Amino acid sequence: MKPKVTILKIGGKIIDDEHALTSFLTLIAARESKTILVHGGGKTATALATKLGVETKMRDGRRITDLDTLKIVTMVYAGLINKTIVARLQALNVDALGLTGADMNIIHAHRRIADTIDYGYVGDPDTTNARRLTTLLKEGITPVIAPITHDGHGTLLNTNADTIAATIAISLAPSFDVTLTYCFEKPGVMLNPNDNTTLIPHINHTLYQTLLNNHTITTGMLPKLHNAFEALKKGVTQVIITSPEHINTQSTGTIIEL
Amino acid sequence: MKPKVTILKIGGKIIDDEHALTSFLTLIAARESKTILVHGGGKTATALATKLGVETKMRDGRRITDLDTLKIVTMVYAGLINKTIVARLQALNVDALGLTGADMNIIHAHRRIADTIDYGYVGDPDTTNARRLTTLLKEGITPVIAPITHDGHGTLLNTNADTIAATIAISLAPSFDVTLTYCFEKPGVMLNPNDNTTLIPHINHTLYQTLLNNHTITTGMLPKLHNAFEALKKGVTQVIITSPEHINTQSTGTIIEL
Repeated sequence: MKPKVTILKIGGKIIDDEHALTSFLTLIAARESKTILVHGGGKTATALATKLGVETKMRDGRRITDLDTLKIVTMVYAGLINKTIVARLQALNVDALGLTGADMNIIHAHRRIADTIDYGYVGDPDTTNARRLTTLLKEGITPVIAPITHDGHGTLLNTNADTIAATIAISLAPSFDVTLTYCFEKPGVMLNPNDNTTLIPHINHTLYQTLLNNHTITTGMLPKLHNAFEALKKGVTQVIITSPEHINTQSTGTIIEL
Repeated sequence: MKPKVTILKIGGKIIDDEHALTSFLTLIAARESKTILVHGGGKTATALATKLGVETKMRDGRRITDLDTLKIVTMVYAGLINKTIVARLQALNVDALGLTGADMNIIHAHRRIADTIDYGYVGDPDTTNARRLTTLLKEGITPVIAPITHDGHGTLLNTNADTIAATIAISLAPSFDVTLTYCFEKPGVMLNPNDNTTLIPHINHTLYQTLLNNHTITTGMLPKLHNAFEALKKGVTQVIITSPEHINTQSTGTIIEL
């Protein structure tokens, strides 16, 4: 039987909320199984950019990253947010290690090829260093990964945290029983995003096809589900979409399995 | 015979100079022996503070670190500078890993007790995690350490890079043949800091006492030499004070031994 590991992605809304972050990190410290934390950026990068007079340009929810913006996200994601989380976890006796993709070459990426939009210094992951991550987990270390990767030629790249989480989950699937958990502000996948009683506790491939055909899932959730099934196809055991307060229980949230 | 390791501290002037940094990292990549790099902050933190309207206050060459300043130095040192160096080293096939003292609890510190001056969030190192550093070195990893530590209670602390380098050197001395190298803009310790021909190639304890008694060493160099002899007394094999272009040769610079 393979050892269990959870790749846990938290978004900006938890990071921006001091109280929510503290509660969440306490739940992380209470976990018994191995965990890799992947964090997003929150509004701090946008706030810093505004203060520095650097214009924030978003396209389809992604940040256009010129050189000044790359410096800002590197400072905020890899510096402030990552190290704050690491120090807080250490205080809770979690032996955390903050990483970007450049550190120990954990995630090698390529700069996204300009199509209609040039995203600038934005990377899409190619490979992850599963061997190094496995060694860290065996040593009892909890990796905390910032959404910054590198191209192997000395350039850092701003990279989507959801994608990083999925890429790591897939890379560890040959040697671990991997759960990929996406935490966000809703309890899970819902038929009506404004009505918590419409939570769908379980989605398998058949139900997914039905939901797709019926157009009963809101557009915002579609890429998340698409990524979830891609990860499952590539060996990840299950994907969970839930709110941060429920990461240690399976009583709420949506569990996605093939 | 113990394996060799060099703790190499580079200051802000190299970091601020793109050309000097590139040359220096190329020399790091050419090294055959194990290296731990400790970097300072450079002027980037001060420049960012100015842009953000945060006043920079220095006392005796140390930065008074209020909460806003702590955020700035964490962003600049642990984020921008650290990850830039790591990505550049990876491009040169050096398997670098950026760390603060919080990461894997590498350096535990205490907040400096306010005496006549309250330095704010400034830490003095207590212990280093020699076991983890040794494991990393054995794995072929080059640790790159930013001058940020933590207090074990969730708070990050701005910490002098010279002190971090000496503390790490001492902690590794029981199991390694440790060289502690301080790189700065001068060729080494000189009788006249404006005359490179007055370089002192070798200082032992007897010469150190003579130099002290004669007042032939400028005040700026005294704490460096004091720290050097403290490190030697605690088991470090040698301390070298040199300029960055000479880290791989012992033909220039000042070698300090007991």
